[in-house]
Amino acid sequence: MKIMVINGPNINMLGTREPEIYGSLTLEDIINEINDYAKTLGVEIETFQSNVEGEIVTSVQKAKNDCCGIVINPAAYTHTSVAIRDAIAAVGLPCVEVHLSNIHNREEFRKNSLTAPVCIGQIAGFGANSYKLGLKALVDFIKSA
Amino acid sequence: MKIMVINGPNINMLGTREPEIYGSLTLEDIINEINDYAKTLGVEIETFQSNVEGEIVTSVQKAKNDCCGIVINPAAYTHTSVAIRDAIAAVGLPCVEVHLSNIHNREEFRKNSLTAPVCIGQIAGFGANSYKLGLKALVDFIKSA
Amino acid sequence: MKIMVINGPNINMLGTREPEIYGSLTLEDIINEINDYAKTLGVEIETFQSNVEGEIVTSVQKAKNDCCGIVINPAAYTHTSVAIRDAIAAVGLPCVEVHLSNIHNREEFRKNSLTAPVCIGQIAGFGANSYKLGLKALVDFIKSA
Amino acid sequence: MKIMVINGPNINMLGTREPEIYGSLTLEDIINEINDYAKTLGVEIETFQSNVEGEIVTSVQKAKNDCCGIVINPAAYTHTSVAIRDAIAAVGLPCVEVHLSNIHNREEFRKNSLTAPVCIGQIAGFGANSYKLGLKALVDFIKSA
Amino acid sequence: MKIMVINGPNINMLGTREPEIYGSLTLEDIINEINDYAKTLGVEIETFQSNVEGEIVTSVQKAKNDCCGIVINPAAYTHTSVAIRDAIAAVGLPCVEVHLSNIHNREEFRKNSLTAPVCIGQIAGFGANSYKLGLKALVDFIKSA
Amino acid sequence: MKIMVINGPNINMLGTREPEIYGSLTLEDIINEINDYAKTLGVEIETFQSNVEGEIVTSVQKAKNDCCGIVINPAAYTHTSVAIRDAIAAVGLPCVEVHLSNIHNREEFRKNSLTAPVCIGQIAGFGANSYKLGLKALVDFIKSA
Amino acid sequence: MKIMVINGPNINMLGTREPEIYGSLTLEDIINEINDYAKTLGVEIETFQSNVEGEIVTSVQKAKNDCCGIVINPAAYTHTSVAIRDAIAAVGLPCVEVHLSNIHNREEFRKNSLTAPVCIGQIAGFGANSYKLGLKALVDFIKSA
Amino acid sequence: MKIMVINGPNINMLGTREPEIYGSLTLEDIINEINDYAKTLGVEIETFQSNVEGEIVTSVQKAKNDCCGIVINPAAYTHTSVAIRDAIAAVGLPCVEVHLSNIHNREEFRKNSLTAPVCIGQIAGFGANSYKLGLKALVDFIKSA
Amino acid sequence: MKIMVINGPNINMLGTREPEIYGSLTLEDIINEINDYAKTLGVEIETFQSNVEGEIVTSVQKAKNDCCGIVINPAAYTHTSVAIRDAIAAVGLPCVEVHLSNIHNREEFRKNSLTAPVCIGQIAGFGANSYKLGLKALVDFIKSA
Amino acid sequence: MKIMVINGPNINMLGTREPEIYGSLTLEDIINEINDYAKTLGVEIETFQSNVEGEIVTSVQKAKNDCCGIVINPAAYTHTSVAIRDAIAAVGLPCVEVHLSNIHNREEFRKNSLTAPVCIGQIAGFGANSYKLGLKALVDFIKSA
Amino acid sequence: MKIMVINGPNINMLGTREPEIYGSLTLEDIINEINDYAKTLGVEIETFQSNVEGEIVTSVQKAKNDCCGIVINPAAYTHTSVAIRDAIAAVGLPCVEVHLSNIHNREEFRKNSLTAPVCIGQIAGFGANSYKLGLKALVDFIKSA
Amino acid sequence: MKIMVINGPNINMLGTREPEIYGSLTLEDIINEINDYAKTLGVEIETFQSNVEGEIVTSVQKAKNDCCGIVINPAAYTHTSVAIRDAIAAVGLPCVEVHLSNIHNREEFRKNSLTAPVCIGQIAGFGANSYKLGLKALVDFIKSA
Repeated sequence: MKIMVINGPNINMLGTREPEIYGSLTLEDIINEINDYAKTLGVEIETFQSNVEGEIVTSVQKAKNDCCGIVINPAAYTHTSVAIRDAIAAVGLPCVEVHLSNIHNREEFRKNSLTAPVCIGQIAGFGANSYKLGLKALVDFIKSA
Repeated sequence: MKIMVINGPNINMLGTREPEIYGSLTLEDIINEINDYAKTLGVEIETFQSNVEGEIVTSVQKAKNDCCGIVINPAAYTHTSVAIRDAIAAVGLPCVEVHLSNIHNREEFRKNSLTAPVCIGQIAGFGANSYKLGLKALVDFIKSA
Repeated sequence: MKIMVINGPNINMLGTREPEIYGSLTLEDIINEINDYAKTLGVEIETFQSNVEGEIVTSVQKAKNDCCGIVINPAAYTHTSVAIRDAIAAVGLPCVEVHLSNIHNREEFRKNSLTAPVCIGQIAGFGANSYKLGLKALVDFIKSA
Repeated sequence: MKIMVINGPNINMLGTREPEIYGSLTLEDIINEINDYAKTLGVEIETFQSNVEGEIVTSVQKAKNDCCGIVINPAAYTHTSVAIRDAIAAVGLPCVEVHLSNIHNREEFRKNSLTAPVCIGQIAGFGANSYKLGLKALVDFIKSA
Repeated sequence: MKIMVINGPNINMLGTREPEIYGSLTLEDIINEINDYAKTLGVEIETFQSNVEGEIVTSVQKAKNDCCGIVINPAAYTHTSVAIRDAIAAVGLPCVEVHLSNIHNREEFRKNSLTAPVCIGQIAGFGANSYKLGLKALVDFIKSA
Repeated sequence: MKIMVINGPNINMLGTREPEIYGSLTLEDIINEINDYAKTLGVEIETFQSNVEGEIVTSVQKAKNDCCGIVINPAAYTHTSVAIRDAIAAVGLPCVEVHLSNIHNREEFRKNSLTAPVCIGQIAGFGANSYKLGLKALVDFIKSA
Repeated sequence: MKIMVINGPNINMLGTREPEIYGSLTLEDIINEINDYAKTLGVEIETFQSNVEGEIVTSVQKAKNDCCGIVINPAAYTHTSVAIRDAIAAVGLPCVEVHLSNIHNREEFRKNSLTAPVCIGQIAGFGANSYKLGLKALVDFIKSA
Repeated sequence: MKIMVINGPNINMLGTREPEIYGSLTLEDIINEINDYAKTLGVEIETFQSNVEGEIVTSVQKAKNDCCGIVINPAAYTHTSVAIRDAIAAVGLPCVEVHLSNIHNREEFRKNSLTAPVCIGQIAGFGANSYKLGLKALVDFIKSA
Repeated sequence: MKIMVINGPNINMLGTREPEIYGSLTLEDIINEINDYAKTLGVEIETFQSNVEGEIVTSVQKAKNDCCGIVINPAAYTHTSVAIRDAIAAVGLPCVEVHLSNIHNREEFRKNSLTAPVCIGQIAGFGANSYKLGLKALVDFIKSA
Repeated sequence: MKIMVINGPNINMLGTREPEIYGSLTLEDIINEINDYAKTLGVEIETFQSNVEGEIVTSVQKAKNDCCGIVINPAAYTHTSVAIRDAIAAVGLPCVEVHLSNIHNREEFRKNSLTAPVCIGQIAGFGANSYKLGLKALVDFIKSA
Repeated sequence: MKIMVINGPNINMLGTREPEIYGSLTLEDIINEINDYAKTLGVEIETFQSNVEGEIVTSVQKAKNDCCGIVINPAAYTHTSVAIRDAIAAVGLPCVEVHLSNIHNREEFRKNSLTAPVCIGQIAGFGANSYKLGLKALVDFIKSA
Repeated sequence: MKIMVINGPNINMLGTREPEIYGSLTLEDIINEINDYAKTLGVEIETFQSNVEGEIVTSVQKAKNDCCGIVINPAAYTHTSVAIRDAIAAVGLPCVEVHLSNIHNREEFRKNSLTAPVCIGQIAGFGANSYKLGLKALVDFIKSA
C-alpha cells in the first residue's frame, strides 16, 4: 500500500520560516518522521513538494496510478485553488487535508478551505504531528472501507 | 495523567441518528473504543455528555481540577456557543476539537467554529476515529510541551 | 396516537408578556384549548415547556419513544439553535413548527428559522390558533403518509 | 361571508409540475377540496389564478368590493413582488399567505417573502392542505376580530 | 409638445390606500391637477396607468411615437424592474422619475431605484406636487436642451 | 420537430435600441435569420415575444403541447423572474438561454441569471448569432438525448 | 416668509469644477437665479455656503431663529454626515434636499443619502433648476401645512 | 427596594480566568463590593449566576416577583441569546446591561449585543466598577421614573 | 486633578431637540449638574462643545496639557470620525465615551462606535446621568491606576 | 486562418473524471471532434492544455503571433485567475469562453467568471459541443468584423 | 514651480503620537526634510496642516491659484472624506497621496481610500520618506506631462 | 548590496499591452532605466519575470541567498496569491510592492492587495517611475535600519 504525501508552496522553507507559527523542523525532518511512522503502519510513502499550483494538480492526478490515498498540505493554495479541489474530486482517491498551524485562529481568509469539502476530513494545528495523524486517519479509513 | 472527553448535544443519539452521516456506532461503543485506546497511550479518561450548553461550560471548568487536557466534540454548539469558547479560554487547558463528520462539506453554517480558535487544533471527518486521533494529538502535545 | 407539543423559552410568561404581540391567553389556557381540539381529532397530546435549550433537545429525543409527531414552538431558539435542529433531524419524527406572532414582520433576525428546514412546514402569525392549525396539519400529514 | 383565493404563476401546472415537490393534485382538484372545506366553515370562496403579476395586483384590489379576506399563494412572486405587497397593504383586508412546499428548506432565495410581512401570517409545507389550514386560520381570525 | 405621464401599480388605489403615507387625493384628482398645471406650461399630457409591468414597458415604448418626454412614477416596480429600466434606455426620451412618498425614509428595499439611473433625475416626497415639479423639471430640461 | 423561440421585454425595440450594445438588426431580421438557419437543421420554429412576464410564463407552458425544446432570451427578466424559472422547470422541456450582449461585462446586476440554472446551458455575447448557436446547441442536445 | 438655502463643500467651485457633471453656472449665478425665482414665489432667501461640516450644522441650527424652512445641498456630506442629519432632525423645520447631478447614476457610494430620511423629500439631477424646484416644493409644502 | 444582579456563564471563574482581560477579583469579591455599595444607595440586592442560558431566562422571569430592577452581565450570551432578550422584554422591569471588559475593542462578534436594545442602557469596560456604576444608574433611573 | 468634558455636534441644542429621545435638560443644565457632581468627587472639570469635527480633534489634543482624563460624548461623530479616534489614541489619556440615549436600540448605523475601541469603556442610555456615571468611572479608574 | 484552443487544469482527466458531470469523452476525443469540425469551417486549430495557470497565460500571449482568435476553457481558473484575464485583455485577440458543464447551476463560486468580461461571450453547458459552438461563434465573429 | 503639501488631522501630534507606528520625527522635522529635498528637485513648497476637514477642502481649492501640484496626507480623512475627494477632482491639479504608515496592514477600515482614486497614485509605509518619494513622483510626473 | 526586482504575469507584454493604462515602455526599457538608477544609488539589481505564481514564490525564496531586499510588482497575483504573501513573510527580507497603474481607481477587485500587508509599503500609479521610487524607498529603508 502506497500513500502520496503532497506539500504546497513555502513548505520547503520550514525550519527557517516564522518558527513561532510553523515550528523549527525542516521539511526533510518531517518527511523522515513520516517515513518512520509509515513503517509502523505498514505503508510506503511517496513525497512531493512544489510551489506551483499546476504541478500539485498534476501530482494529484499521478497519484491515481499507484497510490491508494493522499495526504495533502495545500498550504496557501488551500484558500485559493479550485484547480486542486477539482483534481482531488477528479481522481477519486481518499484524501486527508493537513495543516501545521491551527488555520482557524489566524487571518480570516485562512478559515475557508476550498479543498476540505472534497477530502475525507481535515486535521489542523498539531505541527509536524498533523502529518502523522493524517497518515493514520487515512490508513485506518482505507482499511475499514 | 487524566483527559476529559466532552460530548455535546445529540451525540447520545449516535447509532440511530442519521447513520449515513454519523455512522452506526453508539456513544457507548465509542467511549469503549476510546478507553481501550487511552490505555495504549497510558492515560485515563473521564467522559461527559450533555444536551445543555451551560452544563458543558461547567464540565469544561471542572476539568481544571484534575485533568491535564480536554478532547471536545461540541456538536451543534460548535457553531453557536461563545460560552463554551470562553470556558475553554478561561481554564487554560490544552484542548482538541473533534467532529465525527466532515463539517467542511455540509451546510454553510457548519463551516464556522467558534471554539476551534481557542483549541490547539481541530480534527474532523473520521467518524469515531476522530476521537482517537484527537486523544493521540492531545497526549503528544502535552508530552512535548 | 400521541403527539408531543413542545414550547420554548418565555412561553410560560404568556398572558402577561407583551400582550399586544402575543395575546392575553396564558400557556395553561392554550394547552386546554389544544387538548379540547386534540380530542376532536382523536389524538392524545403530551406537553413540555422549558427555558433551557438542552432540555428541549432532550424532550425532542424522548418523543421518539411513544409519540408519532411533534408540534414545536421553539420561540427564541428558532433563530439560534442548531442543537434543536439536529435533534429534530435525529429523531426522524414528522414535526410542525408554529409561532404565535408573524415572525416575518418583526426584527430582521426573527425572519430566519434554523429549525423550519427540518420540519414538514411552518405556521406563523395566528396566535393560539397557530397550535391548533399545526396540530391539524400534523395529524393530516401522518394519516396521509 | 366571501373569501378570495388567489393563486400565482405556474400553479395552473399543478399535477404535472415536479410532483415530488408539489404533489399530484391539479389546481382544479385543490379548488374542489377548498370548496368542500369552505362549506363546512360556512363561507363562500371565489378563486383566481394568473401568471401575470399585475393581474394579481388587480385581483387583490377587486377583493375589496365584496370579500372580507384573502388566501393567497403568490408562488414565484412571493420573493420578487413589491407590487403585490403594496396591493395587500393598500386594500387593508386580512390576508393569509400559503405555500404548497416548505419554502424554508429549498433554494436560499425562496426563504424571503416580500408579502408575508403585510399578511396576518404564513403557512407553508403542507401541500394542498396548506390552503385549508389557511382558510381556517383566516375565518377564525375574522370571527374573533 | 406632448408629455407622457405613466403611473405604476396601485396608484389607481390612491385616496383609499394608506392615506397617512400617500395622501387623500385620487389618481383622477391628481391627473386633473397635472392637466391644469400642464396648460400653464404650454404642454399637452397623455396619461397611462397599469398594474402590469410589461404594459408599462409597452407604454414607454409607445411614447416614442409622439411624445418628447416622460414623467413616470414606477411605484413598486421602481425597485424590481430591469424591464422598465431597459425600456427607458431604449426609447432615449428624457424621463423624470417621481414618487409621492419620500422613498428614502421607508423600508430599506425602497431606497434603491433601478430606473433612476436612466432618468434625468428623481423627485420624491412631495405628494401630488411631485408630479407637477417633475413636469416642470422635464419641460425646463427639454426647452434648454 | 418544432422549437419554441421566446423573446422577453424590449427585444421588439431591436434595431433602434442602443445599437452600440444590441446591434442594428430588427427582431424581424433576426427571426428571418433563425428561420433560414432552422431549415438547414431540419427543424421548424415558432416565435413569441412579449413585454409581460406572465405571458412569457404562459408561453413556456404552452410549448409543452407541441414543441420539443425552447430557445429563450428572457432579456430583463433574466435577472428578476422566479416565475419564468419555475415555468421552465415545470414544463421539463430542454431549454437554452441566449443573450445578444455579453451580460458578464455589463452592470453587476446583469451577471446573475435566475433562469440559467434550470436551462441546459447559456450562450451570451454573439449578437443575433447567439440565437443560431442556441438553436444548434438545442437541436444537437435533443438528437443526442 | 424667509427660507435658508445651504450649500455644502466645493459648491463654491461651481463653474470651473467638472462642468460636464455640474454645469457652467457659478454659485453666484445660481443664487441670483434663486433670488429672482424666490421673488415670484413671494419669499425671501438667506444663503450660506461652507466647506466645513460643523459650520453647516451650526447654520441649520441658526435657521430656527427666523426661517420657516431649509433648502439644502449637502454635497459630499450627503453621504457621510450623521451630524447634519441630526441637526435637521433637531431643528424640526421642513427641509428639502437638492442635488445638481443625478446622484443615482454616479459612484455607488453617492446613492445613499444620510440626510434625505429626515427631509420632506429629495430632488436630484436638474442642475441649477434643482434649487428652484426645491424652493417651490418647500414653499408649496409650507403653505399647504 | 430590591435589585436582582444576574451573572452569565464563566463569571464564576473570575480571578483565575484571563486576569489581563477580566481583572483579579473573584465573583465573591465583586458581590461583596456590590453589597457594600448597595447599602450606601439604600437598596438590597439578590444575586444569581449560572452557566445555563435557560436558567438565566428563568431568573429574569422570577425577578418580577419582588425586584424593581435588574443589573445583568449576560457575558457570552450577550451576543447569542434571543431568549434572554425576550425574557427582559417580557418582564418589563428596568434593566441595565454591564460588562467587565470593553466589548467594543475585542473580537468583532463581541460588538453586537442582542440584549442591550431592550435595556435602559449599557455600561462596559470598567471591571468590577461596571456593576457599581450599573447599580447606581438603575437606582437613579427608578427614583426619577 | 482636572478632567476635560467634550461634547460633539448638536449637543448645544439639548432641551429643544427631540425631547422624547434626549430629555428636557439644556447643555447648561447638564454642565451645572456635572460641576456639582465633580466637586463631590474632588475634581475640577473643563468643558468644550463644538459642531466641528476638527475642533473636537484639537480639543482632545489640548487636553494633554493639563488634564488627566477625558469624558467625551462624540454624538454624531461617534459613528463616522476616524479623526477623533486617532486623536484619542494619540494623546494617550484615559477616556470614557458617554451617550445620552441608548445607541444600541436606535438606527442600525448608530450601533457602531469608531471611538469606543480606544476608550476605557462606554456608558450609554442614562440621559444626563451618563455624564456623571462617566465622570465617576473615569475618576475611579485614574485613582486605581 | 488559425485558431488557438486552450484548455485549463484537469481537462486532461476527461473521460475518467466525474463522468456524470463532464461526460465520457476524453480530451483527445474532443480535440478530434473539433479538428473535424474546424475543417468544415475552413480553419486550422492549434491546441494547448496545462494545469499551470502561468503556462496558460504564456499560451494566450503566444497566440498573438499567428492566430486570429482564441477558444478557451479556463476550467477551475475561470473563477480565480486575474492573470489569465489580464493576458486576454493584453493580447487583444477575440476570445470565446466555453465550459463543458452549466456552471450556472453548480456551486455558488462557479457562477462568477473573471475571464468572461474580457471575452466576446460565453457558452456553457453543452458538453463537448460547447467547443464546436464556441469555434463557430468565433469564426462567425471574425468574418463579420 | 510651487507644490502644496497638505497634512490632515493629528499629523501635528507627530513625534509624541504612538511612535511605534508613526516614528519619532515631529511635523516640523518632516517639513524641514521636505524643504531640503525640494531644493534638490528645484521646486518650492508651501505647507498646510489642519484638523478640520473643511479647511483641508479649502486648502486644496486654494492650491489652484499658484501651485502646479499637491502632495497630500489626508490621514484619518483618507477613509471618510468625500468632500476632500471632490475638492481634488474639482481643482484638477495632479495630486499624490502619501501615508507615513503602511495602511494596508492595519485595521480593515484603513485599507480603503476615498481620495486615492482621484490622485495620480499612492505611496504608503515609508515614514517621513513617503513625503519625499511623493514629492519626487509628483515633480517627475509634472515634468513628463 | 544586491536587490531582487520581481515582475509578475503579463509584465513581459509591456509596450504592446493596453498602452493607455500601462504606458509604451517595454519591460526591457524599464529594466534598463532601473539599472541606470540603481547605479546612482550604489546598488546592484537582479531581475526576474514569470507568468507562473509558483516560480515567483521560488524567486522570492531564492532572494534570501544573496539579496538584502525585494522590489516586487506581483501584477495580477497581487489580488489572488496567498502563496506569494506567505513567501515574502517566510524569507523575512524587506520588500516594497510597486504597481505601474493606480490600482485604487480601477476595477473593485484590484483595490485589495494580499501582498501589501507583509511589505514595508506600497507605491502605485507612477508608471515605470514606480519601480525607481520603490527602489529608492527600499534602499533608504535598508540604510536606515
